[in-house]
Amino acid sequence: MMTEAEIQQLVSDCLMANGCNSENAAALGRTISAAERDGSASHGLFRMPGYIASLRSGKVDGCAEPTVERISPSVVRVDGRRGYAPLALEKGRQALIEAAQENGIAAMALVNVHHFSSLWVEVEPIAEAGLVAMAFTTYKSAVVPAGAKKPFFGTNPMCFGWPRGDQPPLVFDQASSSMAKGDVMIAARDGQPVPMGTGVDVEGELTTDAQKIIDGGALLPFGGHKGSTIAMMIELLVAGLTGMDFSYEAQVNDNNDGGPPNGGEFMLAIDPNHFGDADSWLQHSEMFIENLAGMEGAHIPGDRRYANRAKAAIHGIKISAKTLDSCKEFLNA
Amino acid sequence: MMTEAEIQQLVSDCLMANGCNSENAAALGRTISAAERDGSASHGLFRMPGYIASLRSGKVDGCAEPTVERISPSVVRVDGRRGYAPLALEKGRQALIEAAQENGIAAMALVNVHHFSSLWVEVEPIAEAGLVAMAFTTYKSAVVPAGAKKPFFGTNPMCFGWPRGDQPPLVFDQASSSMAKGDVMIAARDGQPVPMGTGVDVEGELTTDAQKIIDGGALLPFGGHKGSTIAMMIELLVAGLTGMDFSYEAQVNDNNDGGPPNGGEFMLAIDPNHFGDADSWLQHSEMFIENLAGMEGAHIPGDRRYANRAKAAIHGIKISAKTLDSCKEFLNA
Repeated sequence: MMTEAEIQQLVSDCLMANGCNSENAAALGRTISAAERDGSASHGLFRMPGYIASLRSGKVDGCAEPTVERISPSVVRVDGRRGYAPLALEKGRQALIEAAQENGIAAMALVNVHHFSSLWVEVEPIAEAGLVAMAFTTYKSAVVPAGAKKPFFGTNPMCFGWPRGDQPPLVFDQASSSMAKGDVMIAARDGQPVPMGTGVDVEGELTTDAQKIIDGGALLPFGGHKGSTIAMMIELLVAGLTGMDFSYEAQVNDNNDGGPPNGGEFMLAIDPNHFGDADSWLQHSEMFIENLAGMEGAHIPGDRRYANRAKAAIHGIKISAKTLDSCKEFLNA
Repeated sequence: MMTEAEIQQLVSDCLMANGCNSENAAALGRTISAAERDGSASHGLFRMPGYIASLRSGKVDGCAEPTVERISPSVVRVDGRRGYAPLALEKGRQALIEAAQENGIAAMALVNVHHFSSLWVEVEPIAEAGLVAMAFTTYKSAVVPAGAKKPFFGTNPMCFGWPRGDQPPLVFDQASSSMAKGDVMIAARDGQPVPMGTGVDVEGELTTDAQKIIDGGALLPFGGHKGSTIAMMIELLVAGLTGMDFSYEAQVNDNNDGGPPNGGEFMLAIDPNHFGDADSWLQHSEMFIENLAGMEGAHIPGDRRYANRAKAAIHGIKISAKTLDSCKEFLNA
C-alpha cells in the first residue's frame, strides 16, 4: 500500500531523473497520483513508460513554461510550449474562472501540449470553485466513424462537472469510444477479452481480442452513430477551434514513441449565478440529483471515484508489484 | 405535393384560427414547414394536434411577446412569456450572435417557453452566420436512467452546428434516447415494431411494441450509461442553469393536453475567429470534413437533410392525405 503523497513523489522523482523540471514533475505527479487514488489505474502509473519515452525522445519539453493570455473577454488561450498538459492547465485555470465569473461563460483554448491523463482531474477544481465546467480533447486516430472501416477519430473524451455547494461536485468523464483505450491496453496486457462491440481488428472485423484491437485494429464509438457524431464534434471543438492537429493529423505527425502526441484541448466554464436564477439554482439542482440518486438501480457519476478516494485515505492505495517495479526502473535515467 | 410556402401558410392559418397572433403563427409555420421540407415528418405537421390542443387548453399563450435581455456580457436571457419557442428563439438570436462576436463565446438561457420542434432549425441560422452553435432542451420524463427501471430524463436532444464558409453548415441534432419520441409515436400510429433496446413497457421490461412504449412505458438512453450521463448533463444545463422545470418536474406540472410542457432551453454560440486561429480554422476544418466524407461508409451529419431539401425545392413536399386531413380540421376552431 502507498499513500497519495508517496506516489506523487515517486512520479516526480522518475520524471526529474529524465529531464523534467520540478514544476512540471510536480504537476504530473499530482495528476497521476490522483488517478491511482481514485481507482483509475488506466490513467495512473500504467502510463509512466509513455511519459518517460516522450521525454527521452525529446518530443516533450519537460521544462516547458506555459504562457496564459486572455485573447478575448471570454477566451483564455494557454500555450503549453510543447510540455505536458497538467502544468499548463494549472496555470490557465484561474484566468478561465475569472473570465467566467466576469462574463457568465468563458472558454479556454489549450494549445501545444501533450495530453495523456484524465479530464476529470482538471474539471473537478473548476466545479469546486462553484462553476459548471466542460472539457474535451483529441488524441490519435483510434476510433472508427459510424459506418466506416478504418479509425479516424481519437478516443476523444468529454468531461462535465456540476458544482454542488459544500458537497464534492458531480463529474463525469467519458471517452467517445465504447471503452477507454487505457482499459483495452490493460486487458491486452493481462490477456483478458473485451466485450463484442468494443472494437475491430486490422481487417475492420469485430473482435473480443484486446491485443488485436491494439495491434493495428481500432475501437468503435459508443452508442453507434450518436457516439460517432460526438467524437466528430470533439474533433471540431478542439482542433477546429484551436488550430492544433485533428486526431488523424496527429497520427501522421507523432513520432510514435509511446507517449501522447502534440495537440490541444477545449474547456468551458459557466457561472450559474449569471443565468437569472442565482438564488435557487443550487437547491433546485440538488433536488434533481437527490431524486436521481434515490432511484432503484441508478447511480450518480463520480460516486465510485469518491468512494475509492475515501478508501484510499484510510487504507492506502494498492499498486501492483509489476507496475511499481517498472516505474522504479525510471529512477535511473 | 405541397410547397414549403403552402405548408407554412396552412400551419399559420390553423394556428390563427385557434388563437395565435400572426407573428407567433408565422414563426411556428417556418419551423414546421422546414421540418417537412427536410424530411423530418416526426417534427412536422404530425405535431399539429399537440400545438392546437395546447392553445385550446389555454396552456400556451399564442399571442406571447417574448422579451430579450443581456443579463451578463456573455449571457442573453430570453423570456418566452408562456408562448411557443420559435418566436422567442428568433427574437433572441441576434443578441446571442452579437454577444459571441464581442466576447468569443456566449450563452442564451431561454425560459418560460413551450418547445416542440427540432433544434437544428434554430442552430442552422447561427452556424450560417459563421458561429459554432450548440443547443440543448428537456421535455417530460420519458427516458430511463442507465440501471434504473422508471423514466426520469426527457428525450433531451442536443444539437451542434459548425460553420463551413460558403457551404451549408454541418449540423447534427440527436435525442438522448435510443430513438426520437416522435419516431416511436409514428411507429405506434402505423403499427410498426421498433428495434429491441429502444424502450421498455410499463413494467420496465424490454419491448419492440411501439404502442407499449408510448402507453406508460419509456425509452432507453442511447449508448447505455454514456448516453444516460449526457441526458443528465442536458437536464442540468437546461433546467439547472435557467431555473425552469427538470423533465421530472414538467411531468408533474404539465396539464397533459398533448402539447409541449413549459420549460427552458440552453444555447451556446462560439466565434471561431476569437480562438487564435482566425486565418486558418475554416480551411483546416474543411480538410477534416472532406477527409471524413471521403471515407468508405462514413457520412456527414445533416447531408440527408440537405438532400431532402434540394429534392423538395424541385419536386415539392409529399404530405400524407391522413396528416393533411387532420390538419385541415383545425382551420375551423
